Amino acid sequence: MADQWPEFVRSIKGVILDMCGVLYDSGEGGGVPIEGSVEAVRRLKSSDLQLRFCTNETQATRQKFVAKLQRMGFDIEVREVFSPAPAVVSILKDRGLRPHLLVHDDLLPEFDGVEKSDPNCVVIGDAADNFSYQKMNAAFQVLISLDKPLLFSMGRGRYYKETDGLKLDVGAYMKALEYACDLEAEVVGKPAPMFFQSVLNDMGIQPHEVLMIGDDLVNDVGGAQWCGMKGVQVRTGKYRLSDERHPTVTADGYVDNLACAVDTILKHR
Amino acid sequence: MADQWPEFVRSIKGVILDMCGVLYDSGEGGGVPIEGSVEAVRRLKSSDLQLRFCTNETQATRQKFVAKLQRMGFDIEVREVFSPAPAVVSILKDRGLRPHLLVHDDLLPEFDGVEKSDPNCVVIGDAADNFSYQKMNAAFQVLISLDKPLLFSMGRGRYYKETDGLKLDVGAYMKALEYACDLEAEVVGKPAPMFFQSVLNDMGIQPHEVLMIGDDLVNDVGGAQWCGMKGVQVRTGKYRLSDERHPTVTADGYVDNLACAVDTILKHR
Repeated sequence: MADQWPEFVRSIKGVILDMCGVLYDSGEGGGVPIEGSVEAVRRLKSSDLQLRFCTNETQATRQKFVAKLQRMGFDIEVREVFSPAPAVVSILKDRGLRPHLLVHDDLLPEFDGVEKSDPNCVVIGDAADNFSYQKMNAAFQVLISLDKPLLFSMGRGRYYKETDGLKLDVGAYMKALEYACDLEAEVVGKPAPMFFQSVLNDMGIQPHEVLMIGDDLVNDVGGAQWCGMKGVQVRTGKYRLSDERHPTVTADGYVDNLACAVDTILKHR
Repeated sequence: MADQWPEFVRSIKGVILDMCGVLYDSGEGGGVPIEGSVEAVRRLKSSDLQLRFCTNETQATRQKFVAKLQRMGFDIEVREVFSPAPAVVSILKDRGLRPHLLVHDDLLPEFDGVEKSDPNCVVIGDAADNFSYQKMNAAFQVLISLDKPLLFSMGRGRYYKETDGLKLDVGAYMKALEYACDLEAEVVGKPAPMFFQSVLNDMGIQPHEVLMIGDDLVNDVGGAQWCGMKGVQVRTGKYRLSDERHPTVTADGYVDNLACAVDTILKHR
């Protein structure tokens, strides 16, 4: 499989990179860069390829998140990064919705301009320690009291890797609320096609001209393929050996890490 | 529908009562009896019907739970009460399993005789405030590290009613772990047929001779019907009006509360 992916590399015009698990491993103190990733991003930027970053990160505002990556040494700017919170804020405003928020404290500033009184929907993100029984019940009670319960989930990841081990991601708590309230959440972020489409629109190129590189087989690779892009999985971050024999998603390539992926891309152009 | 249920009442030989939401509403201080329920239990006991109690309660040992009901005035004994913890302990011992427990602190004594080192499965109950992000991650990390992740859930309820509002039940957290680990939990407690069957075995009568009365349409009424019993829903506890137009489960009768149910049963014998 990995031997075949250089063939389509010749026709791509842009690359979208997942961030956590591809650029860095998260954890206490903000995390650490994955070996070779800082240089790999720099090499991509020096090429003729368009480059965007696409994350389901919701533990910080986009500004603070990008600043963290810059401190790690990455050549990256806020306007190149697509994350779920600005996307969900746009949806809330378009549809006149007032959210009850179950999110990380550090994400709250993203919702500063949003009316939150008398909520008529719930928005959840990767709230981490805010996923207490008390706060889950508060979100549940808002939903169950609505005639038409409406839940937005910023991503639907199952878990992610921190330096001290795997941690439950927002998708697990989305499923808990879906089951309790007998509803289906609207996912904002990867793998939602609308979210990928907004990145493609910004790049101004066609899906088949774009390669997505991520560590999440289903949400990064599968989500990108669903939109017509190519998807390659790195063997870093939350990657597990069993991903390479997944029943429904097969990546267009598997590669040890971002540095190797960029080597392959630049060598075959 | 409710007008028809007296017809089968003539042929029943036993009654199984759900407890929370039928006998009492739970909440701070242990909860309060539902009006007329103490007397209704007494009248059933004075009849020729067999009576058992069947609960998914996992916030206390069976002994402490029954003592609480006795303090509320209910004529009830431990041997009449079927709850998930003793059932799961029996399964763990039969299959040589060592659980990681994510349960309420007050349930822990039920597992005193169970080996818990080097866990090879996870058992969850209605852990309430123990459903913290930290403790959910600890359970998740045990599961995801196992070759064949094995999760036992004591019940699969969506939510229950406390005096200060609806609260998430164990089923929501079961779904979270099922999704995160891509597994299906083994449910011990209602609506698992094996659990109902153990009550029927103890009564020594056939399913069609037994009426289950509960406030949970799916787990009490639907679960009992699946085993061949009749099932009636009370309009107390977690009952909601939408239960009476549920897409898959239709009770054999709906009645305002346990006192009314017992009136109807005893009047038609």
